[in-house]
Formats: sequence, C-alpha cells, structure tokens
Amino acid sequence: MAHFDQPLRLRSGAELPAFDIAYETYGTLNAARSNAVLVCHALNASHHVAGFYESDPGNVGWWDNLVGPGKPLDTRRFFVVGSNYIGSCFGSTGPASINPASGRPWGADFPVVTIEDWVEAQARLADRLGIERFAAVIGGSLGAMQALQWTLSYPERIRHSIVVAAAARLTPQNIAFNEVARQAIMTDPDFHGGHYYDKGVVPTRGLRLARMLGHITYLSGEAMAQKFGRLLRRGTPGFDFDIDFEIESYLRYQGDKFSTYFDANTYLRITKALDYYDPAADYGGDLTAALARAKAAFLVVSFNSDWRFPPPRSREIVRALLDNRRIVSYLEIAAPGGHDAFLLEDPRYHAALRAYFANLEL
Amino acid sequence: MAHFDQPLRLRSGAELPAFDIAYETYGTLNAARSNAVLVCHALNASHHVAGFYESDPGNVGWWDNLVGPGKPLDTRRFFVVGSNYIGSCFGSTGPASINPASGRPWGADFPVVTIEDWVEAQARLADRLGIERFAAVIGGSLGAMQALQWTLSYPERIRHSIVVAAAARLTPQNIAFNEVARQAIMTDPDFHGGHYYDKGVVPTRGLRLARMLGHITYLSGEAMAQKFGRLLRRGTPGFDFDIDFEIESYLRYQGDKFSTYFDANTYLRITKALDYYDPAADYGGDLTAALARAKAAFLVVSFNSDWRFPPPRSREIVRALLDNRRIVSYLEIAAPGGHDAFLLEDPRYHAALRAYFANLEL
Repeated sequence: MAHFDQPLRLRSGAELPAFDIAYETYGTLNAARSNAVLVCHALNASHHVAGFYESDPGNVGWWDNLVGPGKPLDTRRFFVVGSNYIGSCFGSTGPASINPASGRPWGADFPVVTIEDWVEAQARLADRLGIERFAAVIGGSLGAMQALQWTLSYPERIRHSIVVAAAARLTPQNIAFNEVARQAIMTDPDFHGGHYYDKGVVPTRGLRLARMLGHITYLSGEAMAQKFGRLLRRGTPGFDFDIDFEIESYLRYQGDKFSTYFDANTYLRITKALDYYDPAADYGGDLTAALARAKAAFLVVSFNSDWRFPPPRSREIVRALLDNRRIVSYLEIAAPGGHDAFLLEDPRYHAALRAYFANLEL
Repeated sequence: MAHFDQPLRLRSGAELPAFDIAYETYGTLNAARSNAVLVCHALNASHHVAGFYESDPGNVGWWDNLVGPGKPLDTRRFFVVGSNYIGSCFGSTGPASINPASGRPWGADFPVVTIEDWVEAQARLADRLGIERFAAVIGGSLGAMQALQWTLSYPERIRHSIVVAAAARLTPQNIAFNEVARQAIMTDPDFHGGHYYDKGVVPTRGLRLARMLGHITYLSGEAMAQKFGRLLRRGTPGFDFDIDFEIESYLRYQGDKFSTYFDANTYLRITKALDYYDPAADYGGDLTAALARAKAAFLVVSFNSDWRFPPPRSREIVRALLDNRRIVSYLEIAAPGGHDAFLLEDPRYHAALRAYFANLEL
C-alpha cells in the first residue's frame, strides 16, 4: 500500500486530498530500472495479479496464468507491478474509505473518477517505486483502456502498450448495459442514495442483477450454448420460477457471490469511468488525431467471439495507430471465450504474449 | 371479449376453470368462412392490432401499418382477428383476474402458461367465431412462435403461417436476459412474492429494469449508434449519476413508461413461455422431426440486424420445413431496426407481405 499526501486533482474538477493505492510487485527491478511492467486490472479484479498469500492459498491472482516465473510475462526477467485504482473496494482509497472532511465513509460523496485519473494516480505510484519509464503496460478490457491512456498521458514513460479485448470508447449499447446495472443498484432500497455503509445494509439485490447482466456480456452466445445448452436442472420444466435452465443457475450463483464482496459505489464509478472514456472526444471523434501523441509500440489483441468489444473495435485502434505510423502488432484470435477470453489460457494468445515479452529489449 | 366456461387444461397440468379472451376483429368473415387471418402479438402488445377507438384516438393498434383497408393485410379482403393471450394484463384472464377459488386476484397462483396453451385458448376462440380453418396466422417474435405452434397443434386448421423475426427455441443467452428481468422483478421488495395486488404497490423498480434490458435486445447496436451516438445530454460529462448519454435517457423513459401499465406477474409468465417453447424438445432436439406434422405453407422473415433472433435462427426453421418438403418462402431483409424491425414499415418487408396476402387464394 502506498500513501500519497499530495492532493490529486481529478478530471471532474474535484480533488482527493490524499489517497492510498494498493499494489503488489513480482520479480525485481533491475539496476537500469528498465524492466518494469505495469499490469492494469479490469472491473472486478485487483492489484493481486499473480501468486497467492501464505495465509490464503486459495486466493490466486487473477492473471496468474500469465504472470510468474517462466510464464509469458516472466517475473524472472520483468519487475511486474499490479496496481489497484482509486475508487476500488480492494484497498485503494474509495467510497468505503473515510472522508477526512466528515470522519465517515465517503459513500455517495466519493468523486466520479476516470481512467485518466487512474493513470495519474498510477504515475505517482511509479514515481514512488523509482520507475521513470515502464518497459510495458498491459491490461485487458478496462485495464486495456488504462494501458492505452498511459501512452497518451505519459508518452515518454511507456515503451510498449499491450491492449487486449478493448475499445477506444464504448458504444451506446455498451453504455446501455452499464446504465441498466447502475439503475439496478441505485433503485435498490438498500442503496440509500449511496450512504449505506452506516445503515448496516448493502444493495445486494442491485449488485446481484448488475453482475448477472455483466456475465451475459462477458460470455459469447456460442460459449453459453456449448456450456449450458437448454439443459433443465430438474429434467423437465418446473412451471414455476425456481431454476429451470442451467444458465439461470450459473447467473444466480455468479450474482450472489459477487454481491457478497463487491462495493456498489465502486461498481457505479467503474461503469462511469468506462462510459466516459473517449480519448477522441477532444478531437471531434477523430481517433487518429487523439492517438497522435502516443509514442509507444503497441500490441493489440482481440477475440472474435467477444461481442462486448468485438474485433472491429480493436481494429479501429490499430488503424488510428497505423495512420500515425506507430509500431503496431495486431492479433485477432478465433476463440469461443467471449470477452472473458482475455483471462483464459488460449495457447495462441499466450504464445504471442510470451514472444512479445521475450523480444522486448531491456 | 369471449368467455369460456369449459376448463382449460394447461401444459403444466394445472387447469383454468374458466377464462376470458380479449379479441378484436377487422373486416368481415366471408360466406365460405375462408378469409380469416389470426394475428398473434408479442410481449407487450395486445389484441388491439389496428385502428383506434373513438374514445381514445391516440391509442393506435400496434400493427396498424400492416393491417387495415388497402394495407398489406387488407381488411377489405380478409377477416382479421387480433387475439390476446391468457395470462395477459390487457383483458384476457390473467394474474390480476379474480381467482374463483379465493375471490381475490390470482397473483402468484396464476399458472405458468405456455405457447401451446395460448394456441389451445385461441382455438376455442376460433370455434366461437365459426372459423374452422384460418387462411393464415401471422405474428412477429413471440407472436411468430404462436404462428408456428398453430401449424403443429392444429395442422388442419391453418393454411398459411407467417413467421417473422422468430426462433424455434431460445438460446441460453436469450434465456439469460429473461432470467435477469425476472430476478429484477422478483427481488423488488414491492413484488411480495407475486401477491402485490392487494398491497397497494406494484414492483415498479423491477418492471422498469426488465424493460430497459428488453429494449437493449430489441434494438440493434448499429441502430443505437445511429440514433443516440455518444451524445451527452448536458453537453459535457456530469461526473454524477444523472443522465449523461442520450441512450440513458431513452432507456429510463421506456422503463418508466412500461412500469406504469404492465403487470409484473404477466411479464414473468411471458418470459417463461418464451423460455419453455421448444417444439423439438420431444424429438431429441430434431426440429425436422418436430415440424413434420405441419401442413401449412410458410413465409419466414428475418432481419439481419436482429441479434435477439438473428437470421440463422429463422434459417433453421426454413431448413426443417424444407426437409419435410413443405412450401416455404424465406425473406431475409438487411434492415437496421434490430428485433423491432418486424414492427416497422420497411418497404421491402411490407411489399413482400402485401404480395403474399394478395396471392393467397380464398
């Protein structure tokens, strides 16, 4: 955990008077300080990227298949930093933290944070760790947007940006799903306008619905069909509202689990950060102009079954980078895993990442 | 309104002791009784298919662009019957009706009804109207499933079946969306286990979420992008949770409106009817075997931007019919309207329906 005393001015104009960032590191920073790789996480993950704690061996890092000794992002060669973002519920300063102005949890008063703000906070963390320039920044989905934004906010501090399963901005359909999730949370009577921490309740119903809906967008239709089909849990239709189909059981389970550990105010803010992200907005929608200041080399990866951020969204980024004569590698993988494919151990995907990191000169 | 005193045995095994079906007719049944066309409605519509009432001129029928004098389904030539289904909240016997056993609204005790049950009830209505055989049955989406089921339940009573924007069964992804909607309703504290009628409340929050989610699946991503883009209502991001993007405003408006007039228990039952529908289930998933008993000629129509029931789902029906050497016309229209395209006045779509009905011999 790193504590920062200097206030952080946010894109909204609000200011965080001080803040903490939770982070983990793996491997060793070399003498030249040239081997640091920043890993940015997506919606429900954290700075706990790889490995496990002795006290909690079941809690394996979310990208453990990628990061570790001998793995594609090899921690014998790279110094890997997993950074949580502000607004999170996993250790960094967020809505459940104490607001110094009131002595009570921030709740609804915690500001709406953006991907640009997260990069600012992570830059402070990099300063603290003595990392002037990252060899690479990597992320999937929301994490990939951070990996992209790093090249725009700090072009000189990023040599390579690895952008997986991403989009340079959400479509109205993406925003629509986020909005339904937010409305589910905000209309839950236990939300109490965001000030539920001292009421002894959490908006479990809303979080549960938000997560169920999220999972529909993370999986591909074909993967759902393969995994669940139209299998009936009770063999025949129940003609009631208990679980009939396996997919219902899966969604309820995921929703229930999520609602026990995730913070509703964090969920609201993450979806807003996603909705707002649009580096081209200041350039009349011209992504090529928006990416002109990026200096990094890029690896962009998409998965054909990802209907949340399908390949055309990645190609849009690739095209804008090529227009700017940036160095770009692009990999489009035919994999059934949907949006979640970026977390899975597809051999072609991992081989490409392994090669990319192996070829990266320090 | 037609009242039926003979009990209706449902697929679930439950029995409705008596029931009403709300219906409207347009045009005149000819002497040969050979010109009747049954129009089946989808989720939130009713038997009010065309025209308007003198007392309520703003309430135009949901398929008024198709049905009327001189329109593709010409009521100068055809006798058109719009039939509501049991379980509806628009006049037919449903969860808000009085349960004769208790003298109070059925509420949660109203049985789970199926598409097969609706066809049974509509067959009783046909008997009442003196229609031995329909010239055609037509419907879109859920209505199209009824149009298909008619050819299976009563092969001799249907000459033509017009199946628009349909599927022969839902995918797990389709079911998943329905399940999130149901959970939104059922976890609304105002749902009271389905017995809310005498509590003075309705599960408005849940209905609102269900409808917002539904609208995402009715529109195509491209239509949303064209119609709403990333337009900000307030010009700049609000950095709060009020409406930022136009699409949010649209969804909230649709959700609010729906929650004032639709019944939650009906919504639950309609989604179950959709989930359960699977004529191939009794044939080991073999749709060709399932459709073998259909005798009607078919017109199947799909829209390429419909991601709820995309063209491959219609082609599956067409293939199964062709395997059975049935007469089938198939029309796949490149239209941006998504699933809702079946309600819109696309000139190619309407020209095809006009020609089909014009060529239909009475």
